[in-house]
Amino acid sequence: MKVSARNVFKGTVKQIQEGAVNAEVVLTLPGGEELVAVVTLQSVKSLGLAAGKDAVALIKAPWVMLMTDSGGFRLSARNTLEGKVTKVSDGAVNAEVVVELAGGTEVYSIVTREAVTELGLAPGVSATAIIKASHVILGVAA
Amino acid sequence: MKVSARNVFKGTVKQIQEGAVNAEVVLTLPGGEELVAVVTLQSVKSLGLAAGKDAVALIKAPWVMLMTDSGGFRLSARNTLEGKVTKVSDGAVNAEVVVELAGGTEVYSIVTREAVTELGLAPGVSATAIIKASHVILGVAA
Amino acid sequence: MKVSARNVFKGTVKQIQEGAVNAEVVLTLPGGEELVAVVTLQSVKSLGLAAGKDAVALIKAPWVMLMTDSGGFRLSARNTLEGKVTKVSDGAVNAEVVVELAGGTEVYSIVTREAVTELGLAPGVSATAIIKASHVILGVAA
Repeated sequence: MKVSARNVFKGTVKQIQEGAVNAEVVLTLPGGEELVAVVTLQSVKSLGLAAGKDAVALIKAPWVMLMTDSGGFRLSARNTLEGKVTKVSDGAVNAEVVVELAGGTEVYSIVTREAVTELGLAPGVSATAIIKASHVILGVAA
Repeated sequence: MKVSARNVFKGTVKQIQEGAVNAEVVLTLPGGEELVAVVTLQSVKSLGLAAGKDAVALIKAPWVMLMTDSGGFRLSARNTLEGKVTKVSDGAVNAEVVVELAGGTEVYSIVTREAVTELGLAPGVSATAIIKASHVILGVAA
Repeated sequence: MKVSARNVFKGTVKQIQEGAVNAEVVLTLPGGEELVAVVTLQSVKSLGLAAGKDAVALIKAPWVMLMTDSGGFRLSARNTLEGKVTKVSDGAVNAEVVVELAGGTEVYSIVTREAVTELGLAPGVSATAIIKASHVILGVAA
């Protein structure tokens, strides 16, 4: 698969909770992390998503938020992935930041340059990647 | 309407499926393509959305993912629009890529420069624009 | 809290409408504006969200659309915040635009440079920030 999304994570469906229009799908990543996706119920059916099946999660880099200090706050975003910054590439307005999780998975994020400065994002710094479940696209091999 | 969204598509509501909080709205575009949007049920009511009514779909360019080879994968994203790249504008971190659909509609996407290189995005290359239904904003003339 | 999101708004939960998978949470901001967020029902429970409780809303700048003229259109996006542009920072492809609301709240948006030109975005210009409810992340102090 050749796709512009910087984040393409392989995983296995752990469980699915169905609603009237949407469904919440929990994926287990190779490193053991869980990733929650909210997709339409119709997608669950058309893709044949079910517990135990392999799937990929696609997440565009601008949809990933980074946090270096929670200040004791807990967030509604279902996905909070802890890791360490391994790379920061600056642009004029934005910067691309790569966070490596404990299991080796690399998470790409696009944040503003101001955020890079304020959070002190640099290689070696601990950071949490935050991803809304509704921003995850799922894929299955045909 | 003057709006920052690079993608403003005119269409006609084909059907609406209501859930408890959200509703799925299918729009038919002039070129015959269908575009699915998930909006809150309250928006469906306040906008008076109904089959046969005209509506516009607004989608910001960073919300559009591009794919040049599915590798046999099928995706949960409800909108996969096939076309050809007509323009690539490079920045330091990001690039703006325009994909023209068969019906003439232009879809704007912001992707990273790395994605442009990896996917070989250049004028004339076939590409599919992928848009999550929950990333589409609908509008109606008052 | 140190987070890359340019928009971190403090508010108070006004009401919550629960669905099967998602819930719609209305926050009142200090300036009196209301901000609607759609989060998973599980988040509502795990965060202990309830009317009267303090919460923060986090919104990444690329998720904020700007509009200078509605052309008589009404939108499905639940959040339309009116204000004035106070700052525009240009990049090669994107620009960061700050809109100050009546109550003093600053809303950060990343839009394309083409949008800046087309909408005539410059300090002093009136603009409406448009935010989908599903793009808002909520947080509560632990």
